[in-house]
Amino acid sequence: MTTRKSVGTYLIERLMALGVRRIYGVPGDYNLEFLELIERTEGISFVGNCNELNAAYAADGDARLSGLSAVLTTYGVGDLSALSAIAGAYAEGVPVIMISGVPPLHAITQRALLHHTLADGNYENVMNCYSQFTVAQARLLPQDAAGEIDRVLGAAWREKRPVYLQLPSDTCCVSVQVPATQDVPAPCGSDPVQLQAAVANIMERLAHATRPVLLLDALVRRFDLHERVGKLSRMLDIPFATLPTGKGALCETDPNYQGIYSGKASAPALYERVRTADCVIGLGVRFVDATSGYFSYAFDPAAFINIQDFDTRCGGDVFMGVAAADLLDAILAQVSERSAAQQAPTPAAPQPVTPPRHATDTQDAANWGQPAFWARIQTFLRQGDVVLADNGTSLVALTHMRLPAQCHFVSQPIWAAIGYTLPALLGSLNAGPKRRHLLFIGDGSFQMTAQELSGVLRARHKPVIFLLNNRGYTIERMILGETAAYNDIANWDYAALPGAMGPSDAAVCLRVNSMAELEEALKQAEDPQRLVFIELGFAPMDGPTGITTFGGVVRHYDYGAFGEG
Amino acid sequence: MTTRKSVGTYLIERLMALGVRRIYGVPGDYNLEFLELIERTEGISFVGNCNELNAAYAADGDARLSGLSAVLTTYGVGDLSALSAIAGAYAEGVPVIMISGVPPLHAITQRALLHHTLADGNYENVMNCYSQFTVAQARLLPQDAAGEIDRVLGAAWREKRPVYLQLPSDTCCVSVQVPATQDVPAPCGSDPVQLQAAVANIMERLAHATRPVLLLDALVRRFDLHERVGKLSRMLDIPFATLPTGKGALCETDPNYQGIYSGKASAPALYERVRTADCVIGLGVRFVDATSGYFSYAFDPAAFINIQDFDTRCGGDVFMGVAAADLLDAILAQVSERSAAQQAPTPAAPQPVTPPRHATDTQDAANWGQPAFWARIQTFLRQGDVVLADNGTSLVALTHMRLPAQCHFVSQPIWAAIGYTLPALLGSLNAGPKRRHLLFIGDGSFQMTAQELSGVLRARHKPVIFLLNNRGYTIERMILGETAAYNDIANWDYAALPGAMGPSDAAVCLRVNSMAELEEALKQAEDPQRLVFIELGFAPMDGPTGITTFGGVVRHYDYGAFGEG
Ligand SMILES: Cc1ncc(C[n+]2csc(CCOP(=O)(O)OP(=O)(O)O)c2C)c(N)n1
Ligand SMILES: Cc1ncc(C[n+]2csc(CCOP(=O)(O)OP(=O)(O)O)c2C)c(N)n1
Repeated sequence: MTTRKSVGTYLIERLMALGVRRIYGVPGDYNLEFLELIERTEGISFVGNCNELNAAYAADGDARLSGLSAVLTTYGVGDLSALSAIAGAYAEGVPVIMISGVPPLHAITQRALLHHTLADGNYENVMNCYSQFTVAQARLLPQDAAGEIDRVLGAAWREKRPVYLQLPSDTCCVSVQVPATQDVPAPCGSDPVQLQAAVANIMERLAHATRPVLLLDALVRRFDLHERVGKLSRMLDIPFATLPTGKGALCETDPNYQGIYSGKASAPALYERVRTADCVIGLGVRFVDATSGYFSYAFDPAAFINIQDFDTRCGGDVFMGVAAADLLDAILAQVSERSAAQQAPTPAAPQPVTPPRHATDTQDAANWGQPAFWARIQTFLRQGDVVLADNGTSLVALTHMRLPAQCHFVSQPIWAAIGYTLPALLGSLNAGPKRRHLLFIGDGSFQMTAQELSGVLRARHKPVIFLLNNRGYTIERMILGETAAYNDIANWDYAALPGAMGPSDAAVCLRVNSMAELEEALKQAEDPQRLVFIELGFAPMDGPTGITTFGGVVRHYDYGAFGEG
Repeated sequence: MTTRKSVGTYLIERLMALGVRRIYGVPGDYNLEFLELIERTEGISFVGNCNELNAAYAADGDARLSGLSAVLTTYGVGDLSALSAIAGAYAEGVPVIMISGVPPLHAITQRALLHHTLADGNYENVMNCYSQFTVAQARLLPQDAAGEIDRVLGAAWREKRPVYLQLPSDTCCVSVQVPATQDVPAPCGSDPVQLQAAVANIMERLAHATRPVLLLDALVRRFDLHERVGKLSRMLDIPFATLPTGKGALCETDPNYQGIYSGKASAPALYERVRTADCVIGLGVRFVDATSGYFSYAFDPAAFINIQDFDTRCGGDVFMGVAAADLLDAILAQVSERSAAQQAPTPAAPQPVTPPRHATDTQDAANWGQPAFWARIQTFLRQGDVVLADNGTSLVALTHMRLPAQCHFVSQPIWAAIGYTLPALLGSLNAGPKRRHLLFIGDGSFQMTAQELSGVLRARHKPVIFLLNNRGYTIERMILGETAAYNDIANWDYAALPGAMGPSDAAVCLRVNSMAELEEALKQAEDPQRLVFIELGFAPMDGPTGITTFGGVVRHYDYGAFGEG
């Protein structure tokens, strides 16, 4: 059974079926009819952003909490501006539906020379770019728009990665045949033979393992596997560690939690624990330079099981077409069968948060600096917080901090574009408006996307923004150019910005240069009634404890012999 | 003869040979060694920007005055963020050398999983994007870096379009064979047979033409042809008109200047003059929708000569491999030969600026609004100004204004990305610091790239910035959604921003809501001693005279029958 609907209407309905409630973006002459449709549809709204990069970051932040999100831009100038953010969503595994309002089909077909193009009749170049950084793409045509929408949205849904749709301006309102039933795309399932073989292989290994360990990566968040993985860890009493790229995958107050694993950059005991494990069960483990101590991980490859989205590797064996969720379910079923009596899955009582890694006398104003600041933040974090960490010293510090229960950690450790978090904050606030949101961001990162503070204020959100002002690119200084001018940036009066970009009563702004001032500021941030903007002054070479060796390692990897001189 | 130099050093020397004095950009771990080299080289400097999109816009603005410029970013997060700006430079014909510091070759070769990538070993995707929007590209390798640098820079130099270079971090300091002589790339010259045939064809047409007209487009600026074209117009007494995309190509005070030609959107007399011409000599004419009254130009195609960069078309005949400059030189030589006696090229005395198109009683505060504002600006413009117009109502108004002599007009009429001009202002100021710079920008455009105000203040430049605050996207409102929320934007306290982003004494900020206030403000802007920031309040649907039909035409083109309802 089919029925007729306009292409734009069908697209909106399918987005809503997947849970999308907000579309971020910027208007342009090629997407106005679609905006009209959004305005007329109840249950979904358009969130205008200052620019398209910010819009895509905001959508990414929204999807981190809501599961899936969408961006709307106008052709060329809009979608290309957002490309880096979409690439970031790809790298981190965030399903963002990128929709571009493109020129009318009649113009594309005749290769008309239009604004927002190179005026050479080429209408493939933008698509060619997006095909590099999305898992599915389509230009919607009247003859097969509904099928293409389902195909492309289905890919985002199943793979948890961004996709790209071009909606020609004159096609948005054209009615087309659409299927009458509109379910959420079915999970792709598993091949039963491969699945059974994989389970047998893993059960066999587990039966002989005396020192197994779980290594969790972003896959757990991407595919919502935390309950299954948590159960596995508890039922078999297997300790787990999380890669920086998977931070927050499982509750860090769990008694089985061993900390963040990043090769030699891990706590020595954890490094040893993994090195000597006789069964390492990875959940989508991918070792990336900066988050693995520059590939300094060490364990027996023959003892390594890596459960990936649609296949699993056990030592040298590969099991294709096995979905991670199915595999975990099958393992859990076998485990509970075998040990129904002796090992009932009793959830372990959450441990209190361990003392901060960088313990410091937080009352001593003379000790003001990043180590003392982060130690205090460790105790300030509380259950349920959404914590956003931008790249730079903030992410380094927060990665190694222990999160209270039910916290959500938002960062971009692989793509690592600075400036990501401020617009992402707008998105995560929209998706979780009742939760306390804490953003930690350096001055360099903040300047990248500063205008999106405007959107946060406009919505009257109440996050706490910690702006670390160390007058430039501290983490770069640690790699090269400690005193070089290129690592300096202009020193803004940051705390004046909320007043300039938003209603005067929407924010409280504070400047903090001592532990005493920090204490005062944190009182306001405890249960914020308005946006709390805290500018923290730090010395240019100050950083969290433990960061000292980082610069040299990067320098050596990037520049080899030339980096030594 | 060859000698050895490091890849980075050779690249810097070649850039300097082409006149580059400033490299815009943002540091990142993959470009730090190159930054070190720049810092150590006299005569060239690094201008740090708040983000990479802004950096590329600034480089574009610099090249508008200096002829050629460069941007330095870090891989993935940096170069992808700048892509839209590079596409813009391509569309408008601006040679920007885009240099990306990319991961070390040893890592690329082994497809290592690094930050700033998708962590899948793919190192071609960013290059694939740039190959869509540049005329030449290379990843620099030790085995042929010097040749590749010359090839790629040569392409930018000859074609006046952007190019893309990837400089692996570990290759920057590797010494390679370089040619001892390092000249500016030779112009590509013309095929003599084709050239002669083209000249003969054109001379024959001119001999019989009684109503010839010149139509100038961006080619004139791109290839610095204004003296030749001016001479041609004067010697043969041919009137000329300029396309919006070529605005400022020739002096608009020239007695032969007929105004801006944009099909039916032109002044009726000009439209008729072109329609009835028996010889239309185009200089790189390219009719783009928004700048040609949506393709409403009309003249006899058989009477159309279009002189393009490397070929010329006369009616149905094409002459390939004919350089525009050579062709003009050859025509000028023949013209002066034939008419040496009777038509000596005596430059016409510049006419005084004609009265503004939208004459209004500029003293009447009750008349406050865009028509009165622009009428007053027409008389405020003065010889030598650099005028920057962002897309939106500003560009519409300024396009039809008559520029005094020696003005430079900076805009992006084809690519038409809003927000382009604020960072471009930083670049044009750096390239022409002694000239008065006037920027006209809407609030929507300003919010796109607002942080780059910081760079302008940091350099203590003294432009005049006219910010048109009409609470949203006015030009979009005229197309669709006059009162729709998606066309609203947050209302900033714009005049507070210079104080928040720069030294408190670097700017004077004014708010203008009447003609009287405008007069006061213009006194400060006459000969600015500091940055003069003027926020102008306008009603959301106010626009320059003559804009009224625009919205309907766009709506019809983009949405056809659906746009009517
Ligand atoms: C879009 C983008 N451009 C450039 C970089 C390179 N980069 C990585 S960290 C960094 C400096 C961050 O400085 P800041 O935000 O002030 O943090 P800090 O290290 O000072 O705490 C830069 C420029 C990047 N990661 N992303
Ligand atoms: C990067 C980019 N995004 C979106 C657009 C679509 N667009 C064209 S004009 C415009 C509105 C401009 O508003 P403003 O700068 O306030 O100027 P006004 O028309 O109000 O004078 C928009 C959103 C664009 N051209 N470029």
